[in-house]
Amino acid sequence: MAAWGKRLAGVRGVLLDISGVLYDGGEDGGAPIRGSVEAVARLKQSRLKVRFCTNESQKSRQELVGLLRRQGFDISEGEVTAPAPATSLILKERGLRPHLLVHDGVRSEFGQIDTSNPNCVVIADAGEGFSYQNMNKAFRVLMELEKPVLISLGKGRYYKETSGLMLDVGAYMKALEYACGIEAEVVGKPSPEYFQSALKEMGVEAHEAIMIGDDIVGDVGGAQRCGMRALQVRTGKFRPSDEQHPEVKADGYVDNLAEAVDLLLQHATK
Amino acid sequence: MAAWGKRLAGVRGVLLDISGVLYDGGEDGGAPIRGSVEAVARLKQSRLKVRFCTNESQKSRQELVGLLRRQGFDISEGEVTAPAPATSLILKERGLRPHLLVHDGVRSEFGQIDTSNPNCVVIADAGEGFSYQNMNKAFRVLMELEKPVLISLGKGRYYKETSGLMLDVGAYMKALEYACGIEAEVVGKPSPEYFQSALKEMGVEAHEAIMIGDDIVGDVGGAQRCGMRALQVRTGKFRPSDEQHPEVKADGYVDNLAEAVDLLLQHATK
Repeated sequence: MAAWGKRLAGVRGVLLDISGVLYDGGEDGGAPIRGSVEAVARLKQSRLKVRFCTNESQKSRQELVGLLRRQGFDISEGEVTAPAPATSLILKERGLRPHLLVHDGVRSEFGQIDTSNPNCVVIADAGEGFSYQNMNKAFRVLMELEKPVLISLGKGRYYKETSGLMLDVGAYMKALEYACGIEAEVVGKPSPEYFQSALKEMGVEAHEAIMIGDDIVGDVGGAQRCGMRALQVRTGKFRPSDEQHPEVKADGYVDNLAEAVDLLLQHATK
Repeated sequence: MAAWGKRLAGVRGVLLDISGVLYDGGEDGGAPIRGSVEAVARLKQSRLKVRFCTNESQKSRQELVGLLRRQGFDISEGEVTAPAPATSLILKERGLRPHLLVHDGVRSEFGQIDTSNPNCVVIADAGEGFSYQNMNKAFRVLMELEKPVLISLGKGRYYKETSGLMLDVGAYMKALEYACGIEAEVVGKPSPEYFQSALKEMGVEAHEAIMIGDDIVGDVGGAQRCGMRALQVRTGKFRPSDEQHPEVKADGYVDNLAEAVDLLLQHATK
C-alpha cells in the first residue's frame, strides 16, 4: 500500500461517521470513543473542512447533537447530514404521506408532514419499536397500496452499542422488501445522492474528500463509489474480517479517529 | 388450458396445505373455510390418498390437530407433515444445539433437544415473539459463531388470519440473513426434501400427486418443481394477481377446496 503521504495528498474535506467513530451509543447515552473528542477538536482547528455524515435515525439532529455536546464534542446541528431531515424534504417534494415506523426520538423531524391516509411507508431504526405488531402494520399498509413505496433511512446491517451489536434498520427493510416483493428507496449512506449532498454542503469535490467510518460497506464502499477516499477505523462495529472484505478495500485502516486525524494533519494539509 | 380430465388424470395422492385451505387462523383459533370440512371428509372416503403438508410452525402438531378436530376436520397427527418435527430430527442427526426463536406453542416439539451453549439458531413463525429483543438475541448468537447456521421453518412471506394478512417467518429469516451475511437452510415448503418426505410418507410418486394450496410460490411452485401437479385455491392469502404470477403457473385455479375436491372426485379417480 502506498505511503500515507501519497494516500492523503490533496484532501481538503473530511466526512466523519458518528456512531462507532465519535462514540458508541447505549442506554445511558453511550460513551465517547477514547481520543475522539480531542481528535474532532484538532480537526476543526485545522484548515480541513469537516462534516458529520451519519445514518443515525433513532434521534433527531437536535437530540443527537445535544448528546454529543454533553460528551464534550465540538459539533452543531448545521454541520450534520442526517437521513431524517433529508427524508422529510423528499416527502414534501413528492407529496408523500408516510406511515412512520420510526423511533419516538426522531418523530419531531417529521412534525410538518401530513401522515393521514398514508401512501408510503418510512422505516428508520426504530429499536424496540420493531415489534411484530408495528412491523405487521407497516406491512399491511404497503400491501394495500397499488404501488407500494418504502423509504428506508439507511440500510445498515447492525451497529455497536456499549452493550454489544444491535440489529439496524437494514434488516427490517429487507424483511418488508421480501414480504411485499418490492425494493426500498434508501435515504442515507451508501446512497450516492446522500454522500453528494454532504459534499455539496461542505463545498468540497469528491476527489478532495475522505470519509472516516466504522462500516466497511456503508461508509468505506459507499464513499469510494462516489469518488472519495475512505478510511476504516478499528472501533465501533469494526471486525477484523473487514480488512479482508471480498469487495471493499479501504484506502487505509486506522486504530481509531485519533490516529486518522494524526495522519491527516501530518499529510493532508501540506 | 387442457380440460380438467386431462389435467387430473392419474392422480392417486393429494397433498393439502392447511392454513388458508382448510381454515384461516386467528386469535380465537380461527374459522374453517366454507365447505372445507366436508371436502376433507369426502376426499378421505375416496380412493385417493391424502396427506396434510403444512408450514405451520407456531403450533405443535398435537395442538394444530386438536384445533382442527374441534372445527370438525377428520385429521390425525400421523397424517400431518410439519416442519418442527422434521427440524427436530435434523438437529439430532447433526448434533446441533439450537437457540430457539419460536412460538411457545411449538416449543414442545423440541423437548428432547439440548439447547445449552447453542451452535445454531432455529427460527419459526414466532408471531408476537418477533420482538426486537428476541431478534437481536438470535442475531448476536449467530454473529458469535464461527460458522453461523440458521435453520428456518419455512420461508413464507405472509399468511392470512381472520383479522388480515400476517407477516410470516420468511420476512424475519431474510432480516437475519442480511444482518449476518449468511443464507438460511429452509425446512418446509418449498424445499424439495420436504415435499419428498411427504410423498414418501403417503407412498405416492411425484407424478401421481397433486398439491392444493393458497401460496402460489411456496405451495404451487414448490410442488411443481418436485414433479407434482398443483392447484391454487382462491382462499386464504390468495390474491387475484397470483393468477398472473411472472414465474409460477398453477395447473388450475379453483375457488376453494370444495371445488378442488369436486373436480378430483370427478376426474382423478377414473
